[in-house]
Amino acid sequence: MKLSSRIRAIPSPAGNAWAIYERAHVLKAQGVDVTMLTIGDHDHVTPEPIIAEMARSARGGHTGYAALPGTAELRRAIAARAGEGVGPQNVFVTPGGQFALFCALIAMLDPGDRAAIVDPYYATYPLTVRSAGGEAVIARADPERGFQPDLADLADKLQGARALLINSPNNPTGAVYSRETMEGIASLCRAHDVWLISDEVYDTQVWEGEHLSPRTLPGMAERTVVIGSVSKSHVMTGFRLGWMVAPEEMVRAIWELGVSTTYGVPGFVQDAALYALEYGAQIEAEVTALYRRRRDLAVEALRGANGLRLSAPQGAMYVMLDIRATGLSGVAFAERLLEEHHIAVMPGEGFGEAAAGHLRVSLTLEDDRLVEALQVLAAFAGELARG
Amino acid sequence: MKLSSRIRAIPSPAGNAWAIYERAHVLKAQGVDVTMLTIGDHDHVTPEPIIAEMARSARGGHTGYAALPGTAELRRAIAARAGEGVGPQNVFVTPGGQFALFCALIAMLDPGDRAAIVDPYYATYPLTVRSAGGEAVIARADPERGFQPDLADLADKLQGARALLINSPNNPTGAVYSRETMEGIASLCRAHDVWLISDEVYDTQVWEGEHLSPRTLPGMAERTVVIGSVSKSHVMTGFRLGWMVAPEEMVRAIWELGVSTTYGVPGFVQDAALYALEYGAQIEAEVTALYRRRRDLAVEALRGANGLRLSAPQGAMYVMLDIRATGLSGVAFAERLLEEHHIAVMPGEGFGEAAAGHLRVSLTLEDDRLVEALQVLAAFAGELARG
Repeated sequence: MKLSSRIRAIPSPAGNAWAIYERAHVLKAQGVDVTMLTIGDHDHVTPEPIIAEMARSARGGHTGYAALPGTAELRRAIAARAGEGVGPQNVFVTPGGQFALFCALIAMLDPGDRAAIVDPYYATYPLTVRSAGGEAVIARADPERGFQPDLADLADKLQGARALLINSPNNPTGAVYSRETMEGIASLCRAHDVWLISDEVYDTQVWEGEHLSPRTLPGMAERTVVIGSVSKSHVMTGFRLGWMVAPEEMVRAIWELGVSTTYGVPGFVQDAALYALEYGAQIEAEVTALYRRRRDLAVEALRGANGLRLSAPQGAMYVMLDIRATGLSGVAFAERLLEEHHIAVMPGEGFGEAAAGHLRVSLTLEDDRLVEALQVLAAFAGELARG
Repeated sequence: MKLSSRIRAIPSPAGNAWAIYERAHVLKAQGVDVTMLTIGDHDHVTPEPIIAEMARSARGGHTGYAALPGTAELRRAIAARAGEGVGPQNVFVTPGGQFALFCALIAMLDPGDRAAIVDPYYATYPLTVRSAGGEAVIARADPERGFQPDLADLADKLQGARALLINSPNNPTGAVYSRETMEGIASLCRAHDVWLISDEVYDTQVWEGEHLSPRTLPGMAERTVVIGSVSKSHVMTGFRLGWMVAPEEMVRAIWELGVSTTYGVPGFVQDAALYALEYGAQIEAEVTALYRRRRDLAVEALRGANGLRLSAPQGAMYVMLDIRATGLSGVAFAERLLEEHHIAVMPGEGFGEAAAGHLRVSLTLEDDRLVEALQVLAAFAGELARG
C-alpha cells in the first residue's frame, strides 16, 4: 500500500549525524561504557515534589479528560509567567513545546507555504515545517557572527514567506539574540508581514546578555507565538508539557485542532506543571545554577585547547565546539571520538550547514565526569590538529 | 494577522449540538444540579494500582524522553494483545488513540485526498480528516439497518477515496458490525484499493455479537491500521495513551512524524499502561461488567417507553434513543430536557445526519441515578409524543 507523498517527504533528521546517537546506543547495549553528551535531556530525575503532586492529582480524581486548552489554573500561571498583556485566553497547553510549534505552523501555513528557519537550527525544525505541510527556507547564522542571524540574508529569505521561526537562547549554538538582533527581526517581520514563532524553551538558561522576548517589541504581540515548556526549566522533559502564548484568535482556532488530534494533556501532568510554576522557584533556580556551573566548568576545561575553538555559550545547556582546525567534519570527528574514546557528542551537521565542522556537547553529566570527558575530547582535537 | 485557510476550515463539532454540553457546564457553574450523561468519560477515578505504578515509574527515573514509538515492553504487550501476526514493529504508541488516527490519515492522504467515514460517526472524525488536510466523504449507516453501513452506498463513496475509517463497537450508535458487514467492508477496501482505519477503542465493551477486527480478514493486514487505547478499557481516558497497529512501513514513516510533533508519550504513562495491560485483567473485567450492567439497566428502564425507541446497544458505553416520535429534533429535545429537567445528553445531530432525531446517552452515572434519569427522560418523551 502506498504511503502519502508528504509522509515520505519527512526524512530522518540529517542522516548520518543522528546515526552517531544510534551507534552510541548500540555500543551501550553491548556493554561499552559510553559517555553520553548527545541529547538535551537531564541526567537526573524530576524533583520529588513535582512527582508527588502528579500522584496526588491523579489520586484526587484528575484522571478523566482534562480541559483541552489547559486547565484554568495552569493557563493563568503560564500567562502570569509570560508577562504583561498576556491573559489565560492567550495560552494553549500542548503535549510538549514542539507540538505547540507544529500547531502554530498549521495555523499559519497553508500547504506549500514557506516558513523561514535559522541555520543552525534545532534538528527537527525542518521536519516539523514539512510535517505541517510547509516548505522550510533557510537563513544563516554563521559562527563568525557569534551565531546571530544575518539580517540581510534573513530579509531575503522572508520574501514570500508566511512565518519565521527563531530560537533564543539557541539550541544548538548557545547564542542569545541581542536586542539589536531581536529588533531587526521584529522590524523584518512587520515589513514582510510574516508571523513570528519564538521558541523560548531555554529562557531560564541565560549565562550572558539578556533574554528578550520579541513578543514585547512594538507591534509584535499580534504576530508572535511564543513557545514555552517546563522541560528544561524544571527537569520535566518526559512529562511532555509545553504551551504557546499567542493572539486569542489563534488560540481559538487551534482549539479545534486540539479537539481533533491529541485532545489535550493529562490533568495530572498539568497539575504537576502548575505546581512547578507556582511552587517550583527553588527547583528552577537549582536547575539553572547546575547548568550555569557546568557551562563555566566546560569553558574553563576547554580554555586554551588546541584544535578546537569554543565560543562561550550565552545560554542553554550545550557547548558548541568549532573543530575545523582538525581538518575533520563534525561527523568524522564524532565518529572517531565515539569509537576511540567512547564519548558520544552530536556533530554540528545534524543542525544545519552553518554548524558544519562543529560539535554540540550536552552538559548532561555530573561535574567531574563532564570535565574529564571534555579534557579527553580536547586532547584528541589537539592530536588531530597537530597530526 | 491572517490564519491559514485550513485551520479556519476546521469547524466546531456540529455547532449547536455541542452547545448543549457547554450550556450544561454553565448551569453547573451556576449551582444547578445537572445530571451529566454527555461525554464518554468514566464517572470514577483510575484504579489505584495503575496510578501507583505511574508514580513508581516516575520516582524510578522514567521522567526523561521516553522511547518515541513506545517502550519495547509496551509495544510487546500491545502486539500480544493485538493477536496473531502482530509484532512490536507494527505498534506505534501515541498520546491518545485519536492522535494515532490523525497520524494514520497524514500517512495515507495527501492534501485534498478523500477519506470516507460512516455516519453516524464519532463527533470529531470529520474534524480529524480536515485537520489532516483531507476531505471527508460520508457514507450512511441508518437506524433502519441497525446502524450497520449500507455497503452499496459505501462502494459509491469509496470511488476515488484513499482511505475508509470505521468504528466498531460504534460510538455513538452502539452497533457492533456483523461478520457480514466486516467482510463486505474488507472486500470493498480491496476492490477499491483503499486503506482501512479500524477504530477499535471499545473492543472490550461488546454486549451482543462478536468483535471482529477487519485486520484479521484475508488480504487486510497490509492495508489496515487498527486504533487502540487504554482509555475505555482501564479507566484511563485522561492518561492520553493510545496506539496504532499498522504495517511496519507505516510505523517507520510515522516515527518521523512523531519526532517532529509530540515526541512521544511520557515514560511513566507508558509504564502505567503497561501495568494495565499486563496485570489489569481484573480491572478490565470489572470495568466491562460495570458498563454491561448499566447497559442492561438502561434497556430495562426504557422498555416499553412511549415516545422513544431504543435499539439495545450491542457495544460501547452509550445508548442511542430514537425520539422522532416526539416530533422534536435531537437538539430541541436535548435543550428542553436540560432546561426543564436538568439532564444533559448529546443530540444525535452532533454525530451526523443519520443520527438526527436521536439522543446519545452516556452510561456514566451510578446505577440508581442513571435509572432515575432515564425514567425522567422517558416520561418527558412520552408527554411530548402524546402532546
